[in-house]
Amino acid sequence: MSLEENTDVEVSRGAPRQLVEKVLRHADANLSASLDRLFQFLRIPSISCDTSYAPQCREAASWISDELSGIGFDASVRSTIGNPMVVAHNKEANGPHVLFYGHYDVQPVEPLDAWKSDPFEPSLEEQPDGETHIVARGASDDKGQLLTFIEACRSWKAVTGHLPLSVSMLFEGEEENDSKSMESFLDEAGDELTADVMLLCDTYLWGDTVPAIVVTFRGVLEDTIEISCASRDLHPGHYSNAARNPIQVLAELIASLRGANGEVAIEGFYDDIARVDDKLRANMAELDFDAGAYLSNVGLSQSAGETAYSVLEQIWMRPACEIYGIAGGHYDGHGFKCSIPSTALAKIAFRLVPGQDPQRIRAAFRNHIRARTPVDCRLKFSDDDATYPPAVISYESPYLDSALVALKQEWNLEPVLIGSGGSIPIIHTIKRRLGLDSLPIGFARSNNGHHSANEKYDLSSFHKGIRSWIRILAELAQRANDRPLTAA
Amino acid sequence: MSLEENTDVEVSRGAPRQLVEKVLRHADANLSASLDRLFQFLRIPSISCDTSYAPQCREAASWISDELSGIGFDASVRSTIGNPMVVAHNKEANGPHVLFYGHYDVQPVEPLDAWKSDPFEPSLEEQPDGETHIVARGASDDKGQLLTFIEACRSWKAVTGHLPLSVSMLFEGEEENDSKSMESFLDEAGDELTADVMLLCDTYLWGDTVPAIVVTFRGVLEDTIEISCASRDLHPGHYSNAARNPIQVLAELIASLRGANGEVAIEGFYDDIARVDDKLRANMAELDFDAGAYLSNVGLSQSAGETAYSVLEQIWMRPACEIYGIAGGHYDGHGFKCSIPSTALAKIAFRLVPGQDPQRIRAAFRNHIRARTPVDCRLKFSDDDATYPPAVISYESPYLDSALVALKQEWNLEPVLIGSGGSIPIIHTIKRRLGLDSLPIGFARSNNGHHSANEKYDLSSFHKGIRSWIRILAELAQRANDRPLTAA
Repeated sequence: MSLEENTDVEVSRGAPRQLVEKVLRHADANLSASLDRLFQFLRIPSISCDTSYAPQCREAASWISDELSGIGFDASVRSTIGNPMVVAHNKEANGPHVLFYGHYDVQPVEPLDAWKSDPFEPSLEEQPDGETHIVARGASDDKGQLLTFIEACRSWKAVTGHLPLSVSMLFEGEEENDSKSMESFLDEAGDELTADVMLLCDTYLWGDTVPAIVVTFRGVLEDTIEISCASRDLHPGHYSNAARNPIQVLAELIASLRGANGEVAIEGFYDDIARVDDKLRANMAELDFDAGAYLSNVGLSQSAGETAYSVLEQIWMRPACEIYGIAGGHYDGHGFKCSIPSTALAKIAFRLVPGQDPQRIRAAFRNHIRARTPVDCRLKFSDDDATYPPAVISYESPYLDSALVALKQEWNLEPVLIGSGGSIPIIHTIKRRLGLDSLPIGFARSNNGHHSANEKYDLSSFHKGIRSWIRILAELAQRANDRPLTAA
Repeated sequence: MSLEENTDVEVSRGAPRQLVEKVLRHADANLSASLDRLFQFLRIPSISCDTSYAPQCREAASWISDELSGIGFDASVRSTIGNPMVVAHNKEANGPHVLFYGHYDVQPVEPLDAWKSDPFEPSLEEQPDGETHIVARGASDDKGQLLTFIEACRSWKAVTGHLPLSVSMLFEGEEENDSKSMESFLDEAGDELTADVMLLCDTYLWGDTVPAIVVTFRGVLEDTIEISCASRDLHPGHYSNAARNPIQVLAELIASLRGANGEVAIEGFYDDIARVDDKLRANMAELDFDAGAYLSNVGLSQSAGETAYSVLEQIWMRPACEIYGIAGGHYDGHGFKCSIPSTALAKIAFRLVPGQDPQRIRAAFRNHIRARTPVDCRLKFSDDDATYPPAVISYESPYLDSALVALKQEWNLEPVLIGSGGSIPIIHTIKRRLGLDSLPIGFARSNNGHHSANEKYDLSSFHKGIRSWIRILAELAQRANDRPLTAA
């Protein structure tokens, strides 16, 4: 869909400094109303991995759509094969066109008794350090974060009647459930979402205080190995020593996956890794990262990763091979049954970095395993495990510069570019489908308890998040007036 | 307890051939009544591993005790900390004194729907090959087998009013549940069970047709390794590559336990193994053992054991290290959770051969594991796993010769001496406590389905088992008259 003409050139030509201050003051003055809206949103138990909450997921979608319609967006709830999407547009005459993505679904809340209060009855909890926590499931992941962007748009609209640039939004309700409907939805509605850059608010501050933009994400490649030997479980008295034991075989296969220096020992595994950008490497070297604390926080003292790389490089820039689970033999509640089992299985998960092609790595992994599987073993791989390619945000993007300028204005600190060892699959999907780079900017803190009990979002994250997006929208619009936009 | 004087010297001096034939004919003529008694016994669901069947276990003990009292034994049910024992004596003036051991408890019957008929309502099923199967839980293991001995005694008593030698019996009700009360019972009652040799009927024919006496049993040593790394499960995005993964560690430890030629790779593991008796080795070499069929019956084509030994040696004469079970990560019913788990565990089971001391092997194993466990791993071994030393029956025992003579008379085939890869812990316990060698002689076939659904005992096993014991008792008594008895 092409942009429609808009005659209000004053706003679309970029926002002068005084106007931004006015929008910020409006957001400050209306923070309480913003918080009320967040509370309404948090009360909807939109749990996506349990289909009995499908009506609540639809309710959450409608809530967002209604809010956006209320501030002048052309918003609608779109049915999918799963939970609905929300799509909304507010086109302006000039400036770049941004697509904001968020997800309204949340994780389950079990175990309930680990919560100090009802996970769907949000509360404000003042902390000894002066912070106030917004406590509820989804407070941070992602309802609180996505609302920072909507509330920023609301302030712009309230003060100026317009947005400083064109904004489309896409909200899904299955991010916590493998985004099952996204591909088929994009088949239908992809063209409608064309824009210049995608914005997301689903990431963290650096060190809980420094604004950060994530520029690399590792990809994911999972596989399951199942080894079967004898046609049935065997009596160990009759078969010990002589019978092929699938647990022994599986253990030897897993042991062969990593070398003595923590490296992955699959032939060609590291061959295609893209060179890390020098500026990014320099930026990373300057980050104040305490590897000792990172490990000791979880009871470890030494990294088990590649000895040739720093811990930060190991988790952001280097691929990994981990075992998520293993099972073999029969557990009866007290111990294992006395038999040589016929089958054992393990789930293997790779994290991939830019340059590594998941399909090529899968083939190399399977060849490694096949070549080492002895006689009398039936080997089965699964075909339904998750695969997300790695993603990298172009360091040269003009949008990136604009966002950094805006973040510095708001936080009075130099923002940092960071990596993530994890994955946000939509970033790769949107790049592949629509060619858009993304700017993942988030205000969560590492102790927010995503996916855990007593999830919280700091009130300061919510407030400064709204203010940050107000400034980012202004800077993106301003930059459009300063110089021609290049495709990312 | 010393033997009391008995004035009936005619019988106790050994049984002449005609007398044995008379006793055998009596057993033949009364087979139907013997079978009726077996059916009564099989109808009692004496499952030992489920304490809700404790009354039925006691009922089974009383049933045996009553049967033995009925044929003139001084029999009684003895309470223990668990299911009761049955002890019975029938002392005669001369001949050796044998102690017969059996167990009246049975395995559970789950899954019930795998049974073609009620496991506790025995039935006779005629087979196309002319055999008749006695089908019920315990038909073979061990109710049918132990009753062959009691019915043999019954025939002797019916025909002669006496037994040809002194017989004591011990029946336990927890053989299928780790014989939990045996040690404390022997503390109290051990002296009462003093005899010259122990007889058991809980083993198999060789090749389903050839009478066999088992002369070596492997011992058992079990241990559980638990490896814990981080203090909690870790998000793989944040920790993959850098965090110590306990499944990886455990796999490497397990892989280190066996070498390239199937051998156990623990230092000193094979050091103390006793030399296998030359006669036994020669006997074993002559056995008609089809290693290919042994493996292909369970879907295997090659032995995974020590390449320097034959398959029969691997399972009878050589120790083994097998993994019974392994677990790590969280399985949610569909697959493993996406996390780096904090803990993984495995159950390791050794089979030991004569000369190997379980405590020394346990120490060598634990040292092997400790030496290879990397930093940041908390290592825990269990202390409650089973340990049974290996057992060997003296090849020089005069009782062994007598039993071989008797078996050849009954089966018209040269009986064989065989090994067992499994364990019958009572054999070692009685040797250690009372100094008695054992003669394990059984009539089960390999397809009897011990511990499985549709367990059966061939009617021919039951019938020829009774006849075999009639002859064995006669030969043991005869031998006592021929030459002085030496302690085994």
